[in-house]
Amino acid sequence: MVIDMANEKLVKEITSMEEDFARWYTDVVIKAELIDYTSVRGCMVIRPYGYAIWENIQHILDTMFKETGHSNVYMPMFIPESLLQKEKDHVEGFAPEVAWVTHGGHEELEEKLCVRPTSETLFCEHYKNIIQSHRDLPKLYNQWCSVVRWEKTTRPFLRSREFLWQEGHTIHATAEEAEKETIQMLNVYADFCEKYLCMPVVKGKKTDKERFAGAEDTYTIEALMHDGKALQSGTSHYFGDGFAKAFGIQYSDKSNNLAYPHQTSWGCTTRLIGAVIMTHGDDNGLVLPPAIAPVQVMIVPIAMHKEGVADKAKEVLASIKKYCRADIDLRDQTPGWKFAEHEMKGVPLRLEIGPKDIENGQCVLVRRDTREKIFVPLAQLETKIPELLDSIAKNLFDTAAARRDRMTYVAKNLDEMVKIADEKPGFIKAMWCGDRECEDKLKETAGVTSRCIPFEQEELDGKCVCCGKPAKKMVYWGKAY
Amino acid sequence: MVIDMANEKLVKEITSMEEDFARWYTDVVIKAELIDYTSVRGCMVIRPYGYAIWENIQHILDTMFKETGHSNVYMPMFIPESLLQKEKDHVEGFAPEVAWVTHGGHEELEEKLCVRPTSETLFCEHYKNIIQSHRDLPKLYNQWCSVVRWEKTTRPFLRSREFLWQEGHTIHATAEEAEKETIQMLNVYADFCEKYLCMPVVKGKKTDKERFAGAEDTYTIEALMHDGKALQSGTSHYFGDGFAKAFGIQYSDKSNNLAYPHQTSWGCTTRLIGAVIMTHGDDNGLVLPPAIAPVQVMIVPIAMHKEGVADKAKEVLASIKKYCRADIDLRDQTPGWKFAEHEMKGVPLRLEIGPKDIENGQCVLVRRDTREKIFVPLAQLETKIPELLDSIAKNLFDTAAARRDRMTYVAKNLDEMVKIADEKPGFIKAMWCGDRECEDKLKETAGVTSRCIPFEQEELDGKCVCCGKPAKKMVYWGKAY
Repeated sequence: MVIDMANEKLVKEITSMEEDFARWYTDVVIKAELIDYTSVRGCMVIRPYGYAIWENIQHILDTMFKETGHSNVYMPMFIPESLLQKEKDHVEGFAPEVAWVTHGGHEELEEKLCVRPTSETLFCEHYKNIIQSHRDLPKLYNQWCSVVRWEKTTRPFLRSREFLWQEGHTIHATAEEAEKETIQMLNVYADFCEKYLCMPVVKGKKTDKERFAGAEDTYTIEALMHDGKALQSGTSHYFGDGFAKAFGIQYSDKSNNLAYPHQTSWGCTTRLIGAVIMTHGDDNGLVLPPAIAPVQVMIVPIAMHKEGVADKAKEVLASIKKYCRADIDLRDQTPGWKFAEHEMKGVPLRLEIGPKDIENGQCVLVRRDTREKIFVPLAQLETKIPELLDSIAKNLFDTAAARRDRMTYVAKNLDEMVKIADEKPGFIKAMWCGDRECEDKLKETAGVTSRCIPFEQEELDGKCVCCGKPAKKMVYWGKAY
Repeated sequence: MVIDMANEKLVKEITSMEEDFARWYTDVVIKAELIDYTSVRGCMVIRPYGYAIWENIQHILDTMFKETGHSNVYMPMFIPESLLQKEKDHVEGFAPEVAWVTHGGHEELEEKLCVRPTSETLFCEHYKNIIQSHRDLPKLYNQWCSVVRWEKTTRPFLRSREFLWQEGHTIHATAEEAEKETIQMLNVYADFCEKYLCMPVVKGKKTDKERFAGAEDTYTIEALMHDGKALQSGTSHYFGDGFAKAFGIQYSDKSNNLAYPHQTSWGCTTRLIGAVIMTHGDDNGLVLPPAIAPVQVMIVPIAMHKEGVADKAKEVLASIKKYCRADIDLRDQTPGWKFAEHEMKGVPLRLEIGPKDIENGQCVLVRRDTREKIFVPLAQLETKIPELLDSIAKNLFDTAAARRDRMTYVAKNLDEMVKIADEKPGFIKAMWCGDRECEDKLKETAGVTSRCIPFEQEELDGKCVCCGKPAKKMVYWGKAY
C-alpha cells in the first residue's frame, strides 16, 4: 500500500463530529478507504479495507449460523413478476422499490424479472419442490448475497440501492419451533453485535406498522449512534404459515395428514459497518473493534533507516502474527504521518519500535481508543497484546453503553415527547396504547418512530404518551437512520 | 437430513453414462441434491450439498489469491450502458448477452443498466479514481460474486444465465509485470485443479478467435471430461493498456511523465463443480475429490439398534472430526440404503462399524473410488484416514490423467481430423498455420474448435492440418462444453 505525501494533508481534513456529523461520516468512509463512489447512482465500491471488515463479520456470523445448524445455499438473483406477486402483503411492500429486468440480450422478456430485494418467494418455490413429509422438516438455510432496493436517497453502508447481506430462511413443522428459531436468531445477532462489534443493542418487537411485508411478527435489534439517532441493526421475522399457504407448501405429518409448515427469515447487512463507524468513531477517524479489524496491530518502526530497526521490526511482526492480525508500515513517510494514517483507519493497537527500544528489549503499544502509551518488554508481547485487545473491546462496549444510557430519556406525555425529541438526540422510552393513530401522531408532532417494544419492559406509568389512555407496552422511540 | 424411503428407488435410477451421458449428468446433479430447478429459466438453486462444495473451492482459491498478494473488493452489480460501451471490443462481445434493467420501482431509468456479465469496466472506473502515481501501483484485486449472461441453452453448472465466480482484476505499471501476473494466475488455477480437484489440465493460449472480448491475450486451462468433450476450466487475460486508454487511466512514473498502466483479469466459476462431476463421476453417482468433499468420511453404523453401537459410532465421529470432515448417518434406514446414498453423493470414505467390529476394536473403511474394503483398528484411524484420503486423491488424478492421455489423438491432415473427430471423442493434437480461415474450416468440416495452443509444444510435423502450409504451432482441438 503506497500513498502520496499529498495525502498527508487529507488525513487532517476530517470534519469534526460536532461541526457536521453527516460530513464527518462521509469523510471517514472515504478517507479511511472503505468505499469509492461509482457512476451507478446509489451503488458503491467496497474497497479492500472495507471489504476485509465485511469478511471478518461474515466469518464470525457464518460460524455462528453453522453452529446453530444452518447450511448455506444460493438462490437466483431474479424473481419473475408472477412469483413475487404470490404473497399479497409481500409484493405490496417491495414492488415500489425493485429494479426490473425487461430485456435479455436484444430481446424483450416475456415476463419481466425483478432483481431480488429479498428472497422469500424463491425459497418458497424451492421448499414446495423438496418438502413432502414431516421427515423433510425443518430446513435451516442461509444465503450470502447482494440485494437491490431502489431507494431515493442513499448513503454509503447505511442505505444503498445494492447492498450485501445474509438472509436466513427456515421452515418448520410447528409454529412453536419457528417462533423459537426467530428468537434464537435475534439473539445470535444481539450477541454478535455486543460481543464482536462492541455495540450495545436493545432487543424487541416491531409494532405492526413497522413490521416486514408479509410477516406476522418482526423482531429487531436497535443500536444508538454517536449522534443520538437509532440504527436498526438486524431483524428476524416470524411468518406463521402465510407464505406456505400462498405458495401451497404442505407436508404430511406423522398421522399422515396434510399440514402447512411455518417459516422464518432473518437478515443483517453491510449496514453493520456503518453502525460500527457511528458507534465508535471519533474526530481522528475510525475506531475498529478488534474482532473485525483487518489489522489489529500495526507496527511503525521509528528511525527506520537506522541499522537493524527495520529488521527487528520485521522479526517482531513475524512473531506476533502467530496470535493476532498484524502488519508493518515500511513506507517512506514520517512516523507522525503513519500514526495519523493508522488512527484514521481505526487500527486498535499501534506498536512503535526504535533504536532505543531495541536496546532496551521493549516497544511501545498505543491504544487507539484511549491513546494510552504502554511500554512493553518484547518478551511479554504475547500476553500483553491479547490482553490489550480484550481491554479495548471491553472499553468500546462500556463507553458505547454508557453513552447510550446517558442519551436515553423518558417521556410521560406528548409535550415532554416533543420537547425531548426536539432538544435531546437519543432514545425516548414512553408508554403506548397500541393504536396506530397514536404512532402516526408521534411521528407527525415529535418526528419520532417506534424503534421497538423491548423484551425488557419497564413500568413507567400506565398511560399512553400520546392519548393518555391506558397503556400496557413501553416502547423505545427515536429518530432513525 | 431426513429422506423418505421413497427415495430408495430413486438412488438406483441413475441413467448409465454409456447409455446417455447428458442424462447421467442431469441425474447426478439432481439426485445428489446439488441443485434444484427454478421458474427463472436458466437459473438454478444451489442446494446445501452443492454449495458446500463451492465453499470449499472458494476457501482454497481465496487462500491462494491472498498468498499471492490479492485483496477482495466488491463492485456494483450494475453497469450503465455508457460505461459498458467505453471499450469497443468489450461491448461488442458482451452486449448481445446481457440482461438490461430499465425500470427502478415504477419509474423508467434515464439510462439503462446491464447486470454485470463481467466487471472490467467497473474496475476501470474505480482505477481512474484511485491511481495517480506509480506509487499507487500495482493494485491486485479480486471479487467473489455472481454474474449474468443471457445464454440461449443452459445446463446446471456448465452454462447458466446466472453463475457464481471470482474475477481477479489487476493493474500494473509495466506490460512485463502484467504479463507475469496473467501467467501466475493461470498457474494458480492449474495447480488448484490438479492438486485439489484431482483434474489434469492443459495450459495454453487461446487463438485470436477464441480470446476474451477486449483482451490482447487469453490463457486457458482445458480439461477433458469422461465423455471426451473438453471443458474450459479457468481463463486469465492480458489486456495491455487498451482498457487504460479507453478509460483514460494514467499515472505519473518515477520521472514524472504520464503513462498508461497495464491490466489483467482472470476468472473461474461454479462450472468447476460440473468439471468435477464429469471428470470423476461414475454410474453410482458423484465421486468427490477429498479436498472439496463436504463430508470426507461418513460413518454408517451396522445393526445400529444393538446396544452400544450408536454410542461407539458417535464416539468415533467425535474423535475423527479432529482431522477430517466427518458425519454420521443415524437415520432409520437400512445400511444398504445408506451405502447407496453416500456413494451417490460421492463421499470419499465410508466407515462401517457394527457389534463385531466393536468387539474387535476395529472398523471397516470403504473407498468410494475403488470400493476397496479395509479393516482398520480404531487406534490406527488417525494415520489411516489421512493416508487413504491422499491415496484417493492420487488415484483420482492418475485415473483421469490416464484417460485423458488415452483419449488424446494426433491428426496430420484434414481427413484424419474429420475421421477422429467423428469416431473418437477426445482431444486432437494437430499443427496449425495460424490462419483464422483454417480454424473456421475445421469447425465446419470436423466440428472441432481450438481449445488452446499449449505451452508444452510438440513437433508433430511441419504442416497445417487443414491447408498443408507450413505451421509452427501445435494446437489442441476438440468438441467442448
